[in-house]
Amino acid sequence: MTTFDEATAVTRLGRGRYLTHPDQRFALVAPGGVTPPAVNGGVLIATVLRAVLDCSPLPHPVATSAHFLRVAKLAPAEIGVTWLKKGRTAATARATLMQDGEPVLETTVTAGTVPVSSPAANGQDGHAELTWTDAPPVLPPPQECVELGPWPGTVAPDGTVGYAAQITMLFDPAVVGWRHGEPSGLPEMRGYFGLREDRDPDALTLAVAVDGLPPVVFGLGATGWAPTVELTMHMRAVPAPGLLRVAARCRNVSGGWFDEDAEVWDSAGNLVAQSRQIARVGRGPLRAGQLAV
Amino acid sequence: MTTFDEATAVTRLGRGRYLTHPDQRFALVAPGGVTPPAVNGGVLIATVLRAVLDCSPLPHPVATSAHFLRVAKLAPAEIGVTWLKKGRTAATARATLMQDGEPVLETTVTAGTVPVSSPAANGQDGHAELTWTDAPPVLPPPQECVELGPWPGTVAPDGTVGYAAQITMLFDPAVVGWRHGEPSGLPEMRGYFGLREDRDPDALTLAVAVDGLPPVVFGLGATGWAPTVELTMHMRAVPAPGLLRVAARCRNVSGGWFDEDAEVWDSAGNLVAQSRQIARVGRGPLRAGQLAV
Repeated sequence: MTTFDEATAVTRLGRGRYLTHPDQRFALVAPGGVTPPAVNGGVLIATVLRAVLDCSPLPHPVATSAHFLRVAKLAPAEIGVTWLKKGRTAATARATLMQDGEPVLETTVTAGTVPVSSPAANGQDGHAELTWTDAPPVLPPPQECVELGPWPGTVAPDGTVGYAAQITMLFDPAVVGWRHGEPSGLPEMRGYFGLREDRDPDALTLAVAVDGLPPVVFGLGATGWAPTVELTMHMRAVPAPGLLRVAARCRNVSGGWFDEDAEVWDSAGNLVAQSRQIARVGRGPLRAGQLAV
Repeated sequence: MTTFDEATAVTRLGRGRYLTHPDQRFALVAPGGVTPPAVNGGVLIATVLRAVLDCSPLPHPVATSAHFLRVAKLAPAEIGVTWLKKGRTAATARATLMQDGEPVLETTVTAGTVPVSSPAANGQDGHAELTWTDAPPVLPPPQECVELGPWPGTVAPDGTVGYAAQITMLFDPAVVGWRHGEPSGLPEMRGYFGLREDRDPDALTLAVAVDGLPPVVFGLGATGWAPTVELTMHMRAVPAPGLLRVAARCRNVSGGWFDEDAEVWDSAGNLVAQSRQIARVGRGPLRAGQLAV
């Protein structure tokens, strides 16, 4: 069993009730370490999806809306799943991650069936069914990309590495100037993404990929803690094995809020997931000195 | 009181309980009239938001996730609002529109405070707060745009006009070839949008605007009934008075699903709302003859 599968494991307690335990191995640390380690939001969504899919009549989480209410503690949590509709094409559940009697993460998941990605499924595939795809993101080949290693927010003051020890990210060099106090001036992130472990991507790792890169506002020099308030993911295909390509961008930063749009494409060249989140800009732009790893 | 305010009115029944009545005046009709008239999804979301904002500690619906479970009937409905968190920056409620004891529309709303749109707020505004906006959509001036009048799906077999009688839409001529059986081949819609009544835009009409244009897949010739399965809207600013500009596009159509991304910009030149929805492609593509109004 991989670390990812251990960290997102759920135990069925009864009808629609699951026990889990947010796992330090996927935690991030706020710059300065002033708040307790927080498990990556995508990993929490993946954990909830595991519970939902365990009792779902349909195989894929087509639409997952997640509102982050409180910081999850590294302690036992219960997931409650209530099915609101079970149709032939779509089935919708409300699923809540609770700790100490309070909702931590509130999700609504509509399950359905999406195509399996294959090279032939890219674009018009000759089926009667309407198929259309816009252009994929442009990335340099992996060998020209930058592996960040443990980046700000992924290392605790005591040197513990959480999330960054589990995830491989190879960045387009154009989007990582913030590491040296030279942000590009554009709120975007692009790179290759995968678990360091040998495990094929699936619905659960897509949830991690869409929230897995550093926040796009790092590109504007705002490298503070940027908590996700709401994230909705759409799964569009079952991904082929191999590294994922993730491209994230932003349309607007104002009033302390920013949006972040992420697309995930697989090794077969298909769009496999989309997301949009709204998050809070970290306090500051931080000073350049705080950016150093 | 305007027709829109009447059609989205709610009556408080008690703590977190509201009565409403989906209104025929904002209904659409499936081509062929085979299903009962369905109230526009954005108008239903607006109705739920009215109930949520009535009891919200914060003024604006920053993130609204809506999963459409069943077709709303033109009959009384109850909205239940449960607050999951009331913080200083964000407050989150679950709100459900129920009919006959079944959930019709399941929403989660995170309320907060967004800036008031003004010309000065466009781009870098000299405040200490980080502000950044990408380029707005490009539209011809209104006088070069096309008013569709009652378009397919907005007229019942008996000639009754619902939704189209309430809404002004002036389309970029490039996106309406589907009317004459000559779809552009691109899944996009763009135009000016407003109520026909004299009423300034606000959070509630933004919910209508993001789901207000014909489905983007009309541009691919798929002009059948395209039900929204899930839609998430982000409100980014309080809109200035005047017509709204709405631009919608799609990244992927496959497996019977398509995504639709909409942006709403106001007369002051600011991005005021964003949305993404996932919807089902209508059965078809329909024959050209079925496109005629």
